Amino acid sequence: MIRTVLTYGTFDLLHRGHLNLLRRAKDLGDRLIVGVSTNEFNESKGKKTIIDFEDRLEIVRSIRYVDEVFAESCWEQKIEDVRRLSANTFVMGDDWAGKFDFLKGACEVVYLPRTLGVSSTGLRSEVNRRERQFYEARKSLELFSPLRGTLP
Amino acid sequence: MIRTVLTYGTFDLLHRGHLNLLRRAKDLGDRLIVGVSTNEFNESKGKKTIIDFEDRLEIVRSIRYVDEVFAESCWEQKIEDVRRLSANTFVMGDDWAGKFDFLKGACEVVYLPRTLGVSSTGLRSEVNRRERQFYEARKSLELFSPLRGTLP
Repeated sequence: MIRTVLTYGTFDLLHRGHLNLLRRAKDLGDRLIVGVSTNEFNESKGKKTIIDFEDRLEIVRSIRYVDEVFAESCWEQKIEDVRRLSANTFVMGDDWAGKFDFLKGACEVVYLPRTLGVSSTGLRSEVNRRERQFYEARKSLELFSPLRGTLP
Repeated sequence: MIRTVLTYGTFDLLHRGHLNLLRRAKDLGDRLIVGVSTNEFNESKGKKTIIDFEDRLEIVRSIRYVDEVFAESCWEQKIEDVRRLSANTFVMGDDWAGKFDFLKGACEVVYLPRTLGVSSTGLRSEVNRRERQFYEARKSLELFSPLRGTLP
């Protein structure tokens, strides 16, 4: 019997933590199916991704541990997805521990440890930190340089 | 005979353009090998990536079109890599058109069209634009609100 594993995520700014989770999820079965959250679903949670849904879907589909992708567009669809896809195991990162125990009647529920020290939020902060450094450096240059006032 | 395709890149903040190039490169042969630029090589070009070398290597390795990865640490290694890996085809995006024609004695050289409208630089700008919007919005809120001065 083919064992199907199901997981969900946003996968904005792909990082090592995403890959670790997907690889470990795939190791729990034969086939890994991933629900990727739509832009609208994220907006309903007050989140706006840097990368659009279609591109996030394409990126997740291109990862070798992933066999199939589909759109996650609301909180309520999970029990229906488990049945429709004949999922044996439902996997999420352990920041969600306990939150999906209501699926235990329909399939096994596993919370995998998150990779420490990496997140899409962390990557966005790092991009911002670099920009601030750059502008601070440029401001100093402007104040103390004969080029004062001439930089664009 | 197995046809080997070789390409190089930084692959910071993975996007659809990277995937398109890797997929098209793989379509040119049977085996796709990718040189991923080290942090030190990027720094020598005045570039500092958001994602570290080991993680970029791991991300590229996880893409289903990629068969093998290795470190690119200087400009000069390409002719040696072509020979060592028995590459039949060398592929780069067409922003590099003409720049690697010196390899034509050793293998076929192909410049593939870049995907319009997406780049790691563009993604970084978008992250920064969002942060500026957020701070502008917070500043307005502070100026015109009874909460003035109380936000962290």
